[in-house]
Amino acid sequence: MPKIFISQREFEERIENIRKELTKRKLAALYLTNPASIFYLTGFSYIMTERPVALIIPLKGKITFMGPLLERDHVPLKTKIIEEVKTYPEHPGEKHPIEYFADFLKEMKLHNKKVGTDNLAGAAGRWGYEGPPITEKLPKMKFILAKDIVANMRMIKSREEIELLRESAKWANLAHTLLQEYTAPGMWDVEVSITASYEASLMMRKALGPEYMPVWWGHFPASAGFRGQVGPMSAIPHAIATNRNIQEGDVLVTGAGADVGGYSAELERTMIVGKPSNKQKKYFEIMRKAQEAAFKAFKPGAKCVDVDKAARKVFLKAGCEQYVLHHTGHGLGIEGHEPPWLDIGDKTVLKPGMVFSCEPGIYIPGFAGFRHSDTVVITEDGAEIITYYPRDLDSLIIT
Amino acid sequence: MPKIFISQREFEERIENIRKELTKRKLAALYLTNPASIFYLTGFSYIMTERPVALIIPLKGKITFMGPLLERDHVPLKTKIIEEVKTYPEHPGEKHPIEYFADFLKEMKLHNKKVGTDNLAGAAGRWGYEGPPITEKLPKMKFILAKDIVANMRMIKSREEIELLRESAKWANLAHTLLQEYTAPGMWDVEVSITASYEASLMMRKALGPEYMPVWWGHFPASAGFRGQVGPMSAIPHAIATNRNIQEGDVLVTGAGADVGGYSAELERTMIVGKPSNKQKKYFEIMRKAQEAAFKAFKPGAKCVDVDKAARKVFLKAGCEQYVLHHTGHGLGIEGHEPPWLDIGDKTVLKPGMVFSCEPGIYIPGFAGFRHSDTVVITEDGAEIITYYPRDLDSLIIT
Repeated sequence: MPKIFISQREFEERIENIRKELTKRKLAALYLTNPASIFYLTGFSYIMTERPVALIIPLKGKITFMGPLLERDHVPLKTKIIEEVKTYPEHPGEKHPIEYFADFLKEMKLHNKKVGTDNLAGAAGRWGYEGPPITEKLPKMKFILAKDIVANMRMIKSREEIELLRESAKWANLAHTLLQEYTAPGMWDVEVSITASYEASLMMRKALGPEYMPVWWGHFPASAGFRGQVGPMSAIPHAIATNRNIQEGDVLVTGAGADVGGYSAELERTMIVGKPSNKQKKYFEIMRKAQEAAFKAFKPGAKCVDVDKAARKVFLKAGCEQYVLHHTGHGLGIEGHEPPWLDIGDKTVLKPGMVFSCEPGIYIPGFAGFRHSDTVVITEDGAEIITYYPRDLDSLIIT
Repeated sequence: MPKIFISQREFEERIENIRKELTKRKLAALYLTNPASIFYLTGFSYIMTERPVALIIPLKGKITFMGPLLERDHVPLKTKIIEEVKTYPEHPGEKHPIEYFADFLKEMKLHNKKVGTDNLAGAAGRWGYEGPPITEKLPKMKFILAKDIVANMRMIKSREEIELLRESAKWANLAHTLLQEYTAPGMWDVEVSITASYEASLMMRKALGPEYMPVWWGHFPASAGFRGQVGPMSAIPHAIATNRNIQEGDVLVTGAGADVGGYSAELERTMIVGKPSNKQKKYFEIMRKAQEAAFKAFKPGAKCVDVDKAARKVFLKAGCEQYVLHHTGHGLGIEGHEPPWLDIGDKTVLKPGMVFSCEPGIYIPGFAGFRHSDTVVITEDGAEIITYYPRDLDSLIIT
C-alpha cells in the first residue's frame, strides 16, 4: 500500500531535531503559531479562525497545545505527539485567550525563560493576529525570533515527504487528465473543474483505501481547475474566475493538486481549444523553452536566483521580458507557497530534498497567458521532475 | 433578475463614508491590508500569497492599489473604484516590496502625513506578514491604528448586502437539500458533499445567468458538506475529516453556504441516520431549545452577550454546560467569521443591519455533536432568520 501519511517515527525525529536545536541555541522551548509548522511537527491540522492557537515544545517537559476548548477532543484523536492540551473557554471571552496562554506558560515554568518563537505576537490569525501580544503579558520571559528553526527543517524534504508528494503528483495527474477530457467549447470552466475533481477524488480514495483522509479543510482531496484563466483572462495569473464559457480558440491555463497526508504537488498546463494559431504556437514554444532552461538549472550547489535567471534569459532573448509577471517558482510541500523562492532576490543554495514548482510564465494582455508548472525535487546529482503530465503542444490541444 | 453584485453606487458611497471619517479624524489617508476590507471598498478580490498588497484611500487624490506586478491587469478588470495601480516586480525581489511601498507613498506625498491603517506592519500574510514593517521605512509618516473605521462600516450591513446574503441563503438551502437527499449509510461523506455542491453550483449559475461569477477563490459557488462531523466525530466541532463512512445511527452535523457577490450566509443542521435513539432525541431537543432561546434574544438594543447567555441558560438548565465548547455565534458577511461575537466577552449593542450566525451547540465526547446554525439579520423591530431550512427532528432524519 502506498504511503499516505507521515509516520509516527518521523514526527518523533522532527521533535528530536527541534530539541537539538533548542539545546544549541540555549532556548528553553519553541513557541509556534504557524498552522503548517504545527502540523509539520505533530500531524495535527485544524481550521484557523480568530481563536489563538500555539504549540509549545519545551526542551524538557510535555509538548503542549494551547488553544480553544473546541479543539480539546480533536487534538488527541489526530496526534500522539502532543502530550498536553491546555484550553481557554472561548474568544474573545471574559478573559482574553492570550491571558490564558500567559498562565499556561507560568504553569509550564517558562515564564522567566528564554524561548524561541516564529511569531512575536504569540498568535497567528487569518490576516495576522489582532489581540495584545504575549510579550506584554510575560515581561520576564524572553522571546527570540527563531522562525528559521522549523523553516530550515521544512525546506529539506525527507524520503517520506517526497513519497507523499510523488503520490500527490499521481492524483493531480488523474485530475488533470479528466479536466482535459471534459474541457470543451461551450462549457463553464467551473463545471469542468468540479467534475474532474469529483471523479479524481473518488478514484483516489478507492485506490488508497478507507484509511485515506484529507488533512486540510476547504479543498477537494484531488482537484484540477482553471482559476479563471480562460481565453483572454488566461493573461491574468490569479484571475480567480471569469464569467464567460470556454470557446474555440481559447488558451486555458490549468492547475491541479491532491492532498496526500497534508502534502500537495503542483501541476499546471497551458491548453489550447481547437487548432492553435501561429501566435499561440509562438508564445507556447517560448514558454516551453523557458521551462526547459529552468529545469536544466536545477542542481545541488546552484542558487535559486540561477533558476530564475535561466528562464528569464529565454524570455529576454525572445523579446518577451515585458510579458513576465512573476518569478520562476517557489518551494512547496505542506503549503502551496513556501520558501525558498526561485527569484532574483533569493540566493539560497539548492540542496538535495528541496522541492520547487517550476513555472516560468508569460502573459500577453488582452490576448493570453502561457504557463506550465511542474514539481521538481533536487536530488544528490541533479533534479527529478515528479509531475509527468505531457508538456508538448500536441498533447494539450482540445479537439 | 436577482441582485448578485454590490452596485458601483454603493462602493462609491462606502468610499465617501471613509473620506468623511478621515476628515473627522484629521487623517490624510487610510492604508488597508485586509483582503476582505479591500474587497468591501473596491469590489476587487485577489488570491493572497506571500506578496504584500495594500489599498490607499487618500482624503484627496487617487485611490491606489499597491501590489505585485502579477495583479496589474487584474485590478482594472474587476473594479472601477481603484484609480491607480502601483506595482513592484516580485517578492522577495532585489528590492523588498515594502521599499517600493515606501516609494509609492512618497510619490503620493503621504510620507510626512498622518495616516490611518488596519495593520501597523504595512502588509498582511497568510499567517501574518513576515517582512520589515512599513513604519521603519517612513520615519516621518505617522501611522495610527484605525481598524475600526472599516470594521464599524462592515458590521452594519446595507440593504444591498442583505439582498446578497438572502440570495446566498437560497442556494445554500438548495445545496443542503441535495446533501440530505444524497446522504445514505455506506456513503463517504466527501462524495455526498461534492455531489450536492456540484449540482447546487450548476443550478445556481443557470438560475443567476452567465453574469454570475464567484468572487473568492478556493470554494464551490454553492456548497454543502460535513467537515468531518460524522458519527462520533460529530462531537468534534472542527473535525475537518473522518475516514469512516456514514452508518445507520450516525449523528451528522452539516454546513452549507454560497458565494453571491462575495457574501455568504451560513446554514448548518444536525441530521440523524435512521430512527433516532432516545438519547439522540434528548440532546437534539435541548440544542433546538437553546437555538430558539437565542433567536428570541436578538433585537436592537440587546447586547451580543445577552444572546450567548440566552442559549447557555438552556444548556445549564438541562445539565449540559460541560458539553458547550464554543459561543453562540459570530458576525458574518464577506468573511465567514467577523466581529461582533455572540460571546460572554462581547458587549456590543445589536443594531439593525447586523448579521449573525446563531449556532449554540453541544458536543458529547465519543457520542455525538448537536448544532444548527442559521443566519439572523437584526431589523428595526427585532430580527429575521434568513435561512429557512427545516429545523425539526422529523425533517432531518435520513431514512
